[in-house]
Amino acid sequence: MTSMMQVELGDRSYPIYMGAGSLDKPELLTKHIKSKQVVVVTNETIAPLYLDRVTKHLQGYQLETIILADGEQFKTLETLSIIFNALLEKKFSRNSTLIALGGGVIGDLSGFAAACYQRGIPFIQIPTTLLSQVDSSVGGKTGVNHALGKNMLGAFYQPQAVVIDVDVLDTLDDRQLAAGVAEVIKYGLIRDANFFLWIEKNIDKIMARDKSALTYIIEQSCQNKAEIVASDERESGIRAILNLGHTFGHAIETGMGYGEYLHGEAVAIGTCQAAELSCELGWLSHSDVARIKALFQRADLPIKAPDCLSAETFLQLMSVDKKNVDGDIRLILLKKIGEATLPIAVERSKLLRVLKA
Amino acid sequence: MTSMMQVELGDRSYPIYMGAGSLDKPELLTKHIKSKQVVVVTNETIAPLYLDRVTKHLQGYQLETIILADGEQFKTLETLSIIFNALLEKKFSRNSTLIALGGGVIGDLSGFAAACYQRGIPFIQIPTTLLSQVDSSVGGKTGVNHALGKNMLGAFYQPQAVVIDVDVLDTLDDRQLAAGVAEVIKYGLIRDANFFLWIEKNIDKIMARDKSALTYIIEQSCQNKAEIVASDERESGIRAILNLGHTFGHAIETGMGYGEYLHGEAVAIGTCQAAELSCELGWLSHSDVARIKALFQRADLPIKAPDCLSAETFLQLMSVDKKNVDGDIRLILLKKIGEATLPIAVERSKLLRVLKA
Repeated sequence: MTSMMQVELGDRSYPIYMGAGSLDKPELLTKHIKSKQVVVVTNETIAPLYLDRVTKHLQGYQLETIILADGEQFKTLETLSIIFNALLEKKFSRNSTLIALGGGVIGDLSGFAAACYQRGIPFIQIPTTLLSQVDSSVGGKTGVNHALGKNMLGAFYQPQAVVIDVDVLDTLDDRQLAAGVAEVIKYGLIRDANFFLWIEKNIDKIMARDKSALTYIIEQSCQNKAEIVASDERESGIRAILNLGHTFGHAIETGMGYGEYLHGEAVAIGTCQAAELSCELGWLSHSDVARIKALFQRADLPIKAPDCLSAETFLQLMSVDKKNVDGDIRLILLKKIGEATLPIAVERSKLLRVLKA
Repeated sequence: MTSMMQVELGDRSYPIYMGAGSLDKPELLTKHIKSKQVVVVTNETIAPLYLDRVTKHLQGYQLETIILADGEQFKTLETLSIIFNALLEKKFSRNSTLIALGGGVIGDLSGFAAACYQRGIPFIQIPTTLLSQVDSSVGGKTGVNHALGKNMLGAFYQPQAVVIDVDVLDTLDDRQLAAGVAEVIKYGLIRDANFFLWIEKNIDKIMARDKSALTYIIEQSCQNKAEIVASDERESGIRAILNLGHTFGHAIETGMGYGEYLHGEAVAIGTCQAAELSCELGWLSHSDVARIKALFQRADLPIKAPDCLSAETFLQLMSVDKKNVDGDIRLILLKKIGEATLPIAVERSKLLRVLKA
């Protein structure tokens, strides 16, 4: 059974297909392909597992595959060039379709390549991690990292379609699964208190990979994401709440070296820091903070920043963030469980107190 | 006197300011700047001539300047990184404004940097060559070259404003002036027969840098460009006619090494080749072709492709072009002087005959 949800963005609207076995439905791909030239971009982990499943549907096309190294440390301008070189060597035209088969790194990187190649070619997302299924494959944020900051170079560029197959999570390792749950919990925290309650109640099922629980959290997450993106595609307002925990989290990823922490792990820690700060400001109670931390812990996620990052280093790293204005650090915080603030500048002393805790 | 023309693109509309002395009107810049952080990107040729004139208006801002090497061979992903590194080192935020002060290379490169930096920051074009004033600064095509093809990587990304000062042409060298005239003649050929007649009549004045003649051709060119862009921003149709002579021309630029021919010179040769092919197809008369070539010659432009590029090499180079579909070379040709075709695939034998001529 494949269900369908639409991301409503006028002439950039697109479907999210969702279900078990979606990968075996060629029409979900082919109806979004407009010319003979198709390239599948994936990585060394995913290629042996799923590349053939995808390419066997595409025998009638001029098909190329690009297999990249796996890991956040390869989400760079240099890797982008590998994709550009391959497409130009094969004389791929502006009507070519790029299919991103992989997790968030592959999706972000390939989506940005698609945005730039000949000023934009169509692309399709096939997310293969929980994190990319619930978050990064939807909404058109594409990009690469820079040594000085995470996701600093990129484009808003929407895919033609997102094809989610819940079954691919069977091969996802536990650490990656947990990382995805961090972004799922985020949706509950920023705008959906009932969903947060549901996750609290069902976290053991989720971690045990109960298929109906996984399907439910993917649906709810995509629904939340699609609504936010539809109302603010380019993050001039409300979309920023999706960055709860991300300013802290990005600082951890950049400061520790890309790939050391999974994105979802860094976001879990960052969300706990954002919760602490929200408590410091008198919005969350201590018991709310404890409850949030307990849920991350039950999801096998870290909740404490690495000791080797000093508060000063943290501040320095956080000062490179897309939400900042004229040098002020601005954060998404929580008014309560289920309600986030827009980006706000916070007194340095309060921020330091949380970073030093 | 500064006149104003609007490029109508809904919420991406922007003004083109035009006149003598526009550079000395700070408000043309400052009213389009939204935050304290401003970066001016220019090159080694333009910096000593005009950088101070621009930056003296910007003393109240956190101002950075980036001075790049001059030339088409520097319009690369590598140069892009110089801009990204500088902006990140200075912690420039998503509200920063980038000002591109220079010719087409600076405009295309900086515009693409602005499009990608933090997924898009505002930018302003101050074109300093005739070519960039009449063509490349208007319309939002940004990008860089690749060893395998000209302008192969980029974005459609509109500026906040274009500020044209006719007086800066006083310092433009003759070769650069002529290169700009190639694109001016293009507008006459593709859609404005009266303008073509006017250019024929006034070409000596133009080449003698008569200020009112220069002002007139800039106005007419921007008007033509703005109308085309307004009706087809992302080149799904009519905008392609602006590429008359460009598939041939890009092949010359790529094949001879970027920087060897100025873009306008390569376009002049390419337009003559397109005219020959249009004659071969029975649309232009031999006398039309002769008339077109004569005009380019009076503008001190080359009309013959370099001998060292064989017809086969040419074909190979032309097979990497954004107008191509599934490997077919598609060209803009002329039905008559003042009317271009949409991209059409041409019999290989006819194309070869022209390339071998």
